[in-house]
Amino acid sequence: MIATALGFLSNTVTDDVDARLEKFFTERTTLARSYGAQYPLLWDAARRASEGGKRFRPLLVMRTHDELGGKNHEAAIEVATAFELLHTAFLVHDDLIDHDDTRRGLPNLAGGESLRGQAAGLATTESELWGETSGILAGDLLIHFAQSMVARIDLPHPQRLALLDCFDDSVFVTAAGELADVALSAGLENADLSRVLAMSSHKTASYSFRGPLRAGAILAGASSETLELLDQYGALVGVAFQLRDDLLGVFGNEAATGKSALNDFRENKATALVAYARTTASWSSVEHLLGEPNLTEEEANLLRGMLELCGARSYVEVLISGHVGDACGIIAASSLPATLRDGLIAVAHASADRDA
Amino acid sequence: MIATALGFLSNTVTDDVDARLEKFFTERTTLARSYGAQYPLLWDAARRASEGGKRFRPLLVMRTHDELGGKNHEAAIEVATAFELLHTAFLVHDDLIDHDDTRRGLPNLAGGESLRGQAAGLATTESELWGETSGILAGDLLIHFAQSMVARIDLPHPQRLALLDCFDDSVFVTAAGELADVALSAGLENADLSRVLAMSSHKTASYSFRGPLRAGAILAGASSETLELLDQYGALVGVAFQLRDDLLGVFGNEAATGKSALNDFRENKATALVAYARTTASWSSVEHLLGEPNLTEEEANLLRGMLELCGARSYVEVLISGHVGDACGIIAASSLPATLRDGLIAVAHASADRDA
Repeated sequence: MIATALGFLSNTVTDDVDARLEKFFTERTTLARSYGAQYPLLWDAARRASEGGKRFRPLLVMRTHDELGGKNHEAAIEVATAFELLHTAFLVHDDLIDHDDTRRGLPNLAGGESLRGQAAGLATTESELWGETSGILAGDLLIHFAQSMVARIDLPHPQRLALLDCFDDSVFVTAAGELADVALSAGLENADLSRVLAMSSHKTASYSFRGPLRAGAILAGASSETLELLDQYGALVGVAFQLRDDLLGVFGNEAATGKSALNDFRENKATALVAYARTTASWSSVEHLLGEPNLTEEEANLLRGMLELCGARSYVEVLISGHVGDACGIIAASSLPATLRDGLIAVAHASADRDA
Repeated sequence: MIATALGFLSNTVTDDVDARLEKFFTERTTLARSYGAQYPLLWDAARRASEGGKRFRPLLVMRTHDELGGKNHEAAIEVATAFELLHTAFLVHDDLIDHDDTRRGLPNLAGGESLRGQAAGLATTESELWGETSGILAGDLLIHFAQSMVARIDLPHPQRLALLDCFDDSVFVTAAGELADVALSAGLENADLSRVLAMSSHKTASYSFRGPLRAGAILAGASSETLELLDQYGALVGVAFQLRDDLLGVFGNEAATGKSALNDFRENKATALVAYARTTASWSSVEHLLGEPNLTEEEANLLRGMLELCGARSYVEVLISGHVGDACGIIAASSLPATLRDGLIAVAHASADRDA
């Protein structure tokens, strides 16, 4: 796992965020008991959806804040926890958009609530509607309370506004990326390489890298030069992270990734890998297999073989190396504290070189 | 219309909120242009979804603030606008939950985006997915930016926290009501009268009455006694408002309400009307018709006749009068400024006695 492999993103820090998450969900679940039998169960489901993550975004917030000499430790915990709530909300609504009812092999929030509905005697259609309803509302609540957690921090007004701008940007840009992802897969927009890379940057780099780094730095009172530098770094590493995800999505070990290596093909997911392949002559012979809901393992192997043959796989590997190299170059040349420099360089490599 | 009929909720106030909404959507749509062709169109659709409303909640915020002698006029506009954004978000997600693609006879956000997808060449299933995706993301964005608008107001920290508590409560309780509504209709919970009334209170009274009244009063620096009094009033009038909605839903004039007078029956909507009818002996002879997706006008008339015969309709009318009477009694006996007292009493009557 990217986070635990790195001394920089030390485990001790997740304890604070885990404790804050636990406090948040316990408080809300307790309050929910006054509103019927189902509402506390929805909050339980939301809590479970927030569990088991790598706490990658919170760690970026905390470590950036601490290494920049920040003294807002309690505020950093609030912001770090808010990013994790936002992440959970995005996962829940992303699964609804994709009509997935599992995540990492287990029922996701909507899937789990749908099963609970069935067990309580609902017919299939009704239980699916119940799962959907639960997913929509849980995501809404987490989005709202993430922002509420940030809003409640007692900060000087300009710093508060900078932090709210950062959080607004994370939500605004991620939604843009999510919408573009669906538009590109559906064919509403032309999935050429530059468009796919922009979408990856918006969907992943924004709230997973740029947002947490910037938020930690704002709380530490960092200069606008530092913020700008972290922004550039975050955008590059975020795209490298997503490109590695795309490669793992079709060439990865299912046991390690926990995801089917057929889904991206079956859903005709818009990736840089396929966008590059489309620019080559040989791709047209296999392209019809993309988006085939019943694609076989044999056909997937044909697609994989062609992605290698046409040079798409190596193109993306080179792209990843280029992004990581640029990101590390920016950090190495900076005057950031040495431990932060080393840490960010390690994070860049870990984001790009991973098998899960 | 409830708002325009009343001098208390004067039209001049909506101009400020309309202008603020216009500014918000223009800014966001402009920013969205940097994120592909679809994103500004999503923001256009969100803007349209926010249009044509009665601005009832903003008016409650503004008038309560002003009549209590508040001097935070600009802040009140922000909070009033935030409640309207939240209202729009709830409508968009409520329609998704109900799988409705129209509102007031026109395509709603998801329905409109689905039609746009079809016109752009998407197949039926893909265009429906596109509509759903648009609905989920638009609602998410509106929920986030409603809260962000509140968070950005420059207020003393305790007043900020009180306002955030109020906004949190509106979102938390409304989601509880929405979940209970679906649970009661699906039969996951027993739809007895007290449970249905609690659900109505949570789904409607919270963010449409209690929240706006309390927010306006907080910004005006009102005493805790005034807040408590407005809370009681808001809870009573909110339930009366919802009970009138339930009556209009089955006995209303479709041309005036803009809603089919068959839908509540077809969807087996959990209402106090039906909950009361269930407690009577005669209801069992027609109950099987509820939830029938192809219910005819003739069968609906049978249900309507039985709701009258068994006393359910008059029971709900008495309940409405009782709630309005109690609400007006609380206000009349209070030491609130006379114009606010008169205004709130007029709002209570208008909420309960309307044909649309």
